[in-house]
Amino acid sequence: VVAKPRLDEFERIARFFAPLAGKGALELKDDAALIDGPAGTQYVLTTDTIVENVHFLADDPPDQIAQKLLRVNLSDLAAKGAKPLGYLLNTALPKSRGAAWLEKFARGLATDQKEFGIVLLGGDSVATAGPITLTVTAIGTVPKGKALLRSGTRAGDGLYVSGTLGDAALGLKILKGELKSRSPKLRRDLVARYRLPEPRLDLGRRLIGIATAAMDISDGLVADLAHLCDASGVGAIVDAEKLPLSPALRAALRADPSLIASVLGGGDDYELLFTAPPGAAKKLSRLPVTEIGRIEAGRDVTVLGRDGQPVKIGTRGYSHF
Amino acid sequence: VVAKPRLDEFERIARFFAPLAGKGALELKDDAALIDGPAGTQYVLTTDTIVENVHFLADDPPDQIAQKLLRVNLSDLAAKGAKPLGYLLNTALPKSRGAAWLEKFARGLATDQKEFGIVLLGGDSVATAGPITLTVTAIGTVPKGKALLRSGTRAGDGLYVSGTLGDAALGLKILKGELKSRSPKLRRDLVARYRLPEPRLDLGRRLIGIATAAMDISDGLVADLAHLCDASGVGAIVDAEKLPLSPALRAALRADPSLIASVLGGGDDYELLFTAPPGAAKKLSRLPVTEIGRIEAGRDVTVLGRDGQPVKIGTRGYSHF
Repeated sequence: VVAKPRLDEFERIARFFAPLAGKGALELKDDAALIDGPAGTQYVLTTDTIVENVHFLADDPPDQIAQKLLRVNLSDLAAKGAKPLGYLLNTALPKSRGAAWLEKFARGLATDQKEFGIVLLGGDSVATAGPITLTVTAIGTVPKGKALLRSGTRAGDGLYVSGTLGDAALGLKILKGELKSRSPKLRRDLVARYRLPEPRLDLGRRLIGIATAAMDISDGLVADLAHLCDASGVGAIVDAEKLPLSPALRAALRADPSLIASVLGGGDDYELLFTAPPGAAKKLSRLPVTEIGRIEAGRDVTVLGRDGQPVKIGTRGYSHF
Repeated sequence: VVAKPRLDEFERIARFFAPLAGKGALELKDDAALIDGPAGTQYVLTTDTIVENVHFLADDPPDQIAQKLLRVNLSDLAAKGAKPLGYLLNTALPKSRGAAWLEKFARGLATDQKEFGIVLLGGDSVATAGPITLTVTAIGTVPKGKALLRSGTRAGDGLYVSGTLGDAALGLKILKGELKSRSPKLRRDLVARYRLPEPRLDLGRRLIGIATAAMDISDGLVADLAHLCDASGVGAIVDAEKLPLSPALRAALRADPSLIASVLGGGDDYELLFTAPPGAAKKLSRLPVTEIGRIEAGRDVTVLGRDGQPVKIGTRGYSHF
């Protein structure tokens, strides 16, 4: 018996779903669809499913699960430069999750609806014998034809990220007991980055007209950069020395330098990764972003270490399959 | 220890989710949301999640699972009078469902995309340790302000359904081994009604400007009629003698009259239930619909039997919780 190779998510999409995609689907490469809205606008539609023990832990606080569910979707809207409008919510819950759980979950939704100016538009509630499975489909608006896409960058563009990288991946390690830290504040900060990503909505909207390509980092910097490069038909060089790191992450790295793998390949950052032509550098210097490398001809993604030599990358990002 | 009463789906929605609903959500009473589209149109958004062993059986053919998933959503669009445009698809699949399953599943999607003139717009694919969990969010268009709603009917309106009732419920009984039939054709017809509902899209669009309220029947006639009456603030009387029944269902009823419960309360019909003023009767006589009763003042739903006396109704429809 020869084991059948498993297809990863991107191979599945390319093989089975891309042939079904129509106008507005952006060939299923952008984690979002565009349909015409009222005069001069387009709607951005994006959807994400999260599953207990895959995307969140069974004992995560229900309000924070709700917030994370909304935020991972809002992060996709941010990556398109969209202004969020509302969302549909599908819940598949085991019977063990009763009114008390739901009340906390709904409180998390309410908190983030206020935070991000969105409303609930619809949804579906079903029971499941399996893990909690939650889907949000988020809707936002962009000026017509102006949505940021993953395609569009070219050799010579600068490569940028927002915020800092790797914190969420370390937060997850702490929750799983794989990383010890004696500092309660450090533990708290990193876990918060895992549980409550910050969708970069304001930044995304400011990047309209500046960025030549953009996406959010959910599967890890290197894996997602490879997706952006695929969509644009280019390669990229990342200078590891330039990667923006939080004080908490610098402290953790001092204790264990191998944690750099979590910066390059850990998921759940939900920062924006984008490109812009050299002429945009001055405008971008006023925004909370860091230039980490540049777009090159070819198709390779290379990370250069401190010595200017390519780093061997042991991760392809989070894969479901 | 006192057992906590479980909340049913509608109580959950009213208590936890309705307070979160915004403009366009139709108070979460319509299984659909409306947002403005290009000049003179609105988009109808609707979403349904189906779970293995709840909404379909583990060994149902994958292509038919895909078709049912699309059709239950298209049925919601039909109930709004919408023209379908496209859909987003979220799959949560156990690792045991590999390329062979997905290939058949995608073939079912392709078949119905062609059948109903829709395209795939986006989605998400994740792995789950639990049952197959599938979500479709469907998008259609209606002329602005013309969508059929569950509210809007009043006392004196006639009550109508499309097609025939109860077939799908009997099909499910056959698949579960709860109903025997010696006729292969009868078995095949009823099972097909369970596995492949027929969204009444053409009818829905023709009902714009005629129907005063509409919905599709997914949880059973009586339960769904109660929802329509709730949304409109009215009651209704159904004349059981007038219920449209297929030849297969009549044959089954002759053998077991108690199966009438499947006509009144069995789910999965996906026929349209709607109301119209008496003046519309002539127009409606040219459509594949049957008048089954009328809207009344009050809030009660009553079913009259052959003797003109109220039938005791032992079902409240399918409930997930």
